[in-house]
Amino acid sequence: MAIVLGPNRYGKAETRVVRVTKDGGVHHIKDLNVGVSLSGEMEQVHLRGDNAPVLPTDTQKNTVFAFAKKYGIGEIEEFGLLLARHFVDSQPTIHHARVEIEEYSWDRIPVEEGPHLGLRHRQHSFVRNGGEVRTALVHSDGTGGAESVVSGLTDLVVLNSTGSEFHGYIEDEYTTLAPTDDRVLATAVTAQWRHRGTDSSWGRSYRDARRCLLEAFAETHSLSLQQTLYQMGRRVLNERREVCEVRMVMPNKHHFAVDLSPFGMDNDNEVFFAADRPYGLIEGSVLTDDAPDAPAAWN
Amino acid sequence: MAIVLGPNRYGKAETRVVRVTKDGGVHHIKDLNVGVSLSGEMEQVHLRGDNAPVLPTDTQKNTVFAFAKKYGIGEIEEFGLLLARHFVDSQPTIHHARVEIEEYSWDRIPVEEGPHLGLRHRQHSFVRNGGEVRTALVHSDGTGGAESVVSGLTDLVVLNSTGSEFHGYIEDEYTTLAPTDDRVLATAVTAQWRHRGTDSSWGRSYRDARRCLLEAFAETHSLSLQQTLYQMGRRVLNERREVCEVRMVMPNKHHFAVDLSPFGMDNDNEVFFAADRPYGLIEGSVLTDDAPDAPAAWN
Amino acid sequence: MAIVLGPNRYGKAETRVVRVTKDGGVHHIKDLNVGVSLSGEMEQVHLRGDNAPVLPTDTQKNTVFAFAKKYGIGEIEEFGLLLARHFVDSQPTIHHARVEIEEYSWDRIPVEEGPHLGLRHRQHSFVRNGGEVRTALVHSDGTGGAESVVSGLTDLVVLNSTGSEFHGYIEDEYTTLAPTDDRVLATAVTAQWRHRGTDSSWGRSYRDARRCLLEAFAETHSLSLQQTLYQMGRRVLNERREVCEVRMVMPNKHHFAVDLSPFGMDNDNEVFFAADRPYGLIEGSVLTDDAPDAPAAWN
Amino acid sequence: MAIVLGPNRYGKAETRVVRVTKDGGVHHIKDLNVGVSLSGEMEQVHLRGDNAPVLPTDTQKNTVFAFAKKYGIGEIEEFGLLLARHFVDSQPTIHHARVEIEEYSWDRIPVEEGPHLGLRHRQHSFVRNGGEVRTALVHSDGTGGAESVVSGLTDLVVLNSTGSEFHGYIEDEYTTLAPTDDRVLATAVTAQWRHRGTDSSWGRSYRDARRCLLEAFAETHSLSLQQTLYQMGRRVLNERREVCEVRMVMPNKHHFAVDLSPFGMDNDNEVFFAADRPYGLIEGSVLTDDAPDAPAAWN
Repeated sequence: MAIVLGPNRYGKAETRVVRVTKDGGVHHIKDLNVGVSLSGEMEQVHLRGDNAPVLPTDTQKNTVFAFAKKYGIGEIEEFGLLLARHFVDSQPTIHHARVEIEEYSWDRIPVEEGPHLGLRHRQHSFVRNGGEVRTALVHSDGTGGAESVVSGLTDLVVLNSTGSEFHGYIEDEYTTLAPTDDRVLATAVTAQWRHRGTDSSWGRSYRDARRCLLEAFAETHSLSLQQTLYQMGRRVLNERREVCEVRMVMPNKHHFAVDLSPFGMDNDNEVFFAADRPYGLIEGSVLTDDAPDAPAAWN
Repeated sequence: MAIVLGPNRYGKAETRVVRVTKDGGVHHIKDLNVGVSLSGEMEQVHLRGDNAPVLPTDTQKNTVFAFAKKYGIGEIEEFGLLLARHFVDSQPTIHHARVEIEEYSWDRIPVEEGPHLGLRHRQHSFVRNGGEVRTALVHSDGTGGAESVVSGLTDLVVLNSTGSEFHGYIEDEYTTLAPTDDRVLATAVTAQWRHRGTDSSWGRSYRDARRCLLEAFAETHSLSLQQTLYQMGRRVLNERREVCEVRMVMPNKHHFAVDLSPFGMDNDNEVFFAADRPYGLIEGSVLTDDAPDAPAAWN
Repeated sequence: MAIVLGPNRYGKAETRVVRVTKDGGVHHIKDLNVGVSLSGEMEQVHLRGDNAPVLPTDTQKNTVFAFAKKYGIGEIEEFGLLLARHFVDSQPTIHHARVEIEEYSWDRIPVEEGPHLGLRHRQHSFVRNGGEVRTALVHSDGTGGAESVVSGLTDLVVLNSTGSEFHGYIEDEYTTLAPTDDRVLATAVTAQWRHRGTDSSWGRSYRDARRCLLEAFAETHSLSLQQTLYQMGRRVLNERREVCEVRMVMPNKHHFAVDLSPFGMDNDNEVFFAADRPYGLIEGSVLTDDAPDAPAAWN
Repeated sequence: MAIVLGPNRYGKAETRVVRVTKDGGVHHIKDLNVGVSLSGEMEQVHLRGDNAPVLPTDTQKNTVFAFAKKYGIGEIEEFGLLLARHFVDSQPTIHHARVEIEEYSWDRIPVEEGPHLGLRHRQHSFVRNGGEVRTALVHSDGTGGAESVVSGLTDLVVLNSTGSEFHGYIEDEYTTLAPTDDRVLATAVTAQWRHRGTDSSWGRSYRDARRCLLEAFAETHSLSLQQTLYQMGRRVLNERREVCEVRMVMPNKHHFAVDLSPFGMDNDNEVFFAADRPYGLIEGSVLTDDAPDAPAAWN
C-alpha cells in the first residue's frame, strides 16, 4: 500500500473588490466578492514543500485588484473568464483555474428635486439593494481550452400565501403529517444555470433567467415543492436557449399555521409561525437532452 | 453586607409571526420578529423559585399569535403598544412591558400580462425585499401610564463614492493615517427615533424619516462621519415634528484604495478593498432642546 | 425649538490583535478582540466637521498594536486600563475612554513523547479552545479620575438534564403550557461582574467567578431559570468580595420532549428537540447593598 | 430539444436531536444535528406533482426522533447507517439515502467535593465543549447494497507561532509578497476520512484520526500549508488502516506581523493582526493507492 496525492487546489477566497467608474460626475459602482482556485502540477509542493510551481494566493488577490483597474468590471461572467484564462495562460504549472464571484447590487439614492440640491449628490450616492446575490462560477483550462460558465443567484426569498397543496404521499409508521390542500409555500432560491458557450449576453440572460424563476414560482399551482422547482428550471430552459442545465437548491421554509383553538379562535391560514430548523431541503436539476456532459463545471 | 436583587426582566425573544390578510383573492402579508420583556414583582421568583407572579414566556408567545389573529397587524408601533398594554393591564404583578419588533418587507412578484396567466397568481406571490429592516421599541407601564415609542431601522447600507474628506485631526506618536480630501464613505445605518407621543402617523412618519436619513447622507459633503450623522438626525427632527430624539450607530465600513503602483498603475479612487474588521464605529444622538427626558425608552 | 447634540462617542471596533511572547523556545499566546470608544469635546466635529479634537480611529488601532508590543498583554482588565488611561491622559479633548475586550483561549497541542519528536514542536503549537469567551469592559476618565472595571464571559453553554421544575405560574386565557416537575434546563450564559476597585487579582478572580457560576448552575435544584440566575450571581458575590455586582443574560434554550406516542413509544425525558427560536430570555442582576452606583460602567 | 429531469434529492435538514440516557442517577448526553436526503423514483413528482413515491420530510424527522428512542444514539456513524438503511429498506421507491450528522460534545461540570454538595448534581450537569464538531456522512443503497461511511471533523482551529516558512514561489508582474522563513501558520481544519468498510471501531478511529491530524500539524516544519496538509492526511492513513482516503479543506488564516517601525519599535513576530478576508484556501486529498473509487461517498 502506497500513499498518494489526490485531487487538490489552492487559491484566494473572498477578495472583496469595489470598482468605481467615473463618467464625468456620474459614478457607477460594482461590488464583488471573488474567489480564485488553481490546480496543476502540485505534487512537489505537497510532498516536499517545494513551492516552485505555486502562484501565491497573495498574487492572485493582487491580480483581481489590478484587473479591476486595467479592464474595469463588466458582467461578472466576463470578469471571471478574464481572470481564469490569465492564470492558466500565464503560468505553465497551472492547468486549471476556477473563479467564483458574488455580486452585490446597489441602487442610486433618490433625492427630491429642489433649489437646495446640487445635482452632483445623487450621482455618487448609493444604497445597497439587499435582495438576492448574483453569482458566477467559471472554469477554464486556458484560452482555447475546455471552459464552462455557470450563472446564478442565491438568497432569492419567495412566498406564495396560497396555491400550494401537499397530499398523496407515502404513509408509514412514523407519519404524523396531515395532508393539506392549502398551505404557505416559501423558499430561499439558490439557482445556477450552465451556458452552452462562453459568449452569452450575460446581462440580458441573467435578467431573463431571474424573471423566469420568479414567474414560474408565482404561476405554478404547486402540488409539491419538487414540482415547482421543475417548472422554474423548465421555464429558464424554454426561454433562454443559451442555457442547457439548471440546478436548484430550495429549502422549504416551513410556515406552520398556529393552532389558535385553545383561545377560541379559528385560523384559516392567517397566522403562521415561521420556523428556522429543521427544514425540508429540495435539490434538483433540469437539463436539455442535448446538454454536453460537464461535471467539472459545478465543482 | 447583604446581597440583593437588582434590575431584572424576562420574556420571549424572537417570536416569528407571519400574518396573511385576505382581501378577496388579494393577499397582504406582514412578517415580524417580536420580542417581549416584562418586569414587576419578581423578588419571590428569584429568591425562592415561587412562580406565582410569572406569566410564562410560552404564554407571551401565544399572546403574540392570538393578537395577530384578533387585531391583525397594522403598523408595528401600534401592534407593540397593543401587546405591551395588554400584559401590564391584565396582570397585577407586571408593572412594565417592553416590546421590540423587527419587520421584514415583501414585494409582490411582478408577472407579465398574458393569456396564459391567471390573475390570481400575482395576488398572493411575494419576493422578500432584502433591504433595511424596520424596527419599533415600545415601553409601557399600562394604559394611562408612562409609555414611549421608538421607531427605527437597521441595516440600511449606503455609500458615497466621493464627496467625503477627512483631515485636520489630532496627530500623535501613533498616527500613520494620511489626510484625504476624497474618500469613499460607506456605512450600515442603524437609526432609532423617539416619538413625543404614542399616536403618530406611524407609516407616514417612518417613510419620511427614512427618506430624510437617505437624503441627508447623500447631500452632505462630509468632513467626518460624525458630521454626516448629525446632519441625518437633524434632518429627521426638522421635518418630523412628532420626533424629539434620534440615535444612530454607524460603523465606518472602510473602503481602502488599493495601492496599484507596484503594477505601474495609478488608482484615482477607482479600485477599493472593502474591509471587514476593524472598523470605525460612530455613535451619536441628536435631540430637540424640549425633548422630555426618557432614558428608559432606549433600554 | 432648537436642535442639539446629545451623547456621542466614536472609536475603533474589533481590532484583532494576537501577541506572541517568547520565553526561549517556549511561546505564549494572547488572542484578543479590542474595541475602543472615546468621548469628550466633540461639538465642533458634529456641527461643523472640524476634526481638531478627533483622535482618528486608525490611530486608536495603531495604539492597540503598539501597546501590545510595548507592554505585552497580561490580564485583559489591565490591558484595558492601560489603553483607556492613555487616551484620556494624552489628549486634552478626550474626557472619557471605554475599552471592551474579548479574549479567545488556546491550549497547547499535546504530542506523545517519542524519539521522532523534537521537543520544540509542542512549545509553539496551539489548538483553540472553543468554549466561552472571556470579556472585560473598562471605563476611565483618566489616571486618578473615575474608573470602572467589569469582567465577564459569554457563550458558556450549560445544561442540566434533570433537577429542574416549572409550575405555579399565572394561567390566563392564552396559557397552554403544562406545568412540569422535570425538564431539561439549558442556557448560554453571558455574565458580567463589576469590581469594587481597579486592582483585583484579575486572573484568579476570573477563574473563581467562572467556577462559582458553573457550580451554582449545577447544584441548584431549579424551580425557575430566574432562581438559578440569582443563585449564580449570589455565589460569585459570596466568594469574591472584590466584586459588588453581577449581571446576567440567560436565554432559555428550550429542549422540548418529543411526543413519541404516535409511534407507540413513551418518552421519559429521553429524546428532545433542541429549538432555536423563539426562546425565553431571562435578564437579571444581583448586587451587594453597599455597591457604589455606577450606571456608566455597563454602557 | 427536450427537457429532462436531472439528478435530484430531497430530505429534512438540521434536525436537532438531543438524547439523554439514564444509568441510574448518572445521565449521558448525545447532541446531534441530523440531515437526511433521499433519492429514487421521483420523476412523477417533479413532472406531475404526484407524490405517491414521496416519504415526507416531516416523516424523516419523526424517524430520527423515534430511532433515537428505540435504538439510542451510539457512534454517529452507526446512527447514520441505521437511518440510511431504514429509509431504503422500507420504501421501494427510495433507492439511495444520504445521512449527514454533526455532533456537539459536552463535558460534565466539575464540582468540588464538600458536605454541602449532593452527589446527584454533577451526574446530570454539563457544559458544552465548544471545540471542533465531529461529523459523519453516510450513503446507503440499503442493507446489502453499496454503502460508504466518511467520518470527520470541522472547526478544529490550530496555530503554530513559528516553524513555518514560505518562499521559492513564482514571481510575476503582480507579485508583492516577500518571502519569509518565519511566519505564523494558522488554520481551521475541516477534515473528512473515508472508511474502507462499514464496521470500523468508530469511536477509537475518530479519536486516533483527530490525534494524528493535531500531531502532524504540530510536528511538521512547514514550507507551505499544502505540505502540512499532506502530512496530516498521510499520518491518518499510516496509523488507521481502516481509512483509505482523507480530504481536507484548510483556510490559511492570515496573521500579518504589524509594521511597528513608525512607532520606533521592531516586531520580531510578536504582534500580529489576525485578518478575516480574503484568506488563502487550500483543499487537498491524500489516499492509498488501493482505495476503491467512490465519488458518490463525498456528495
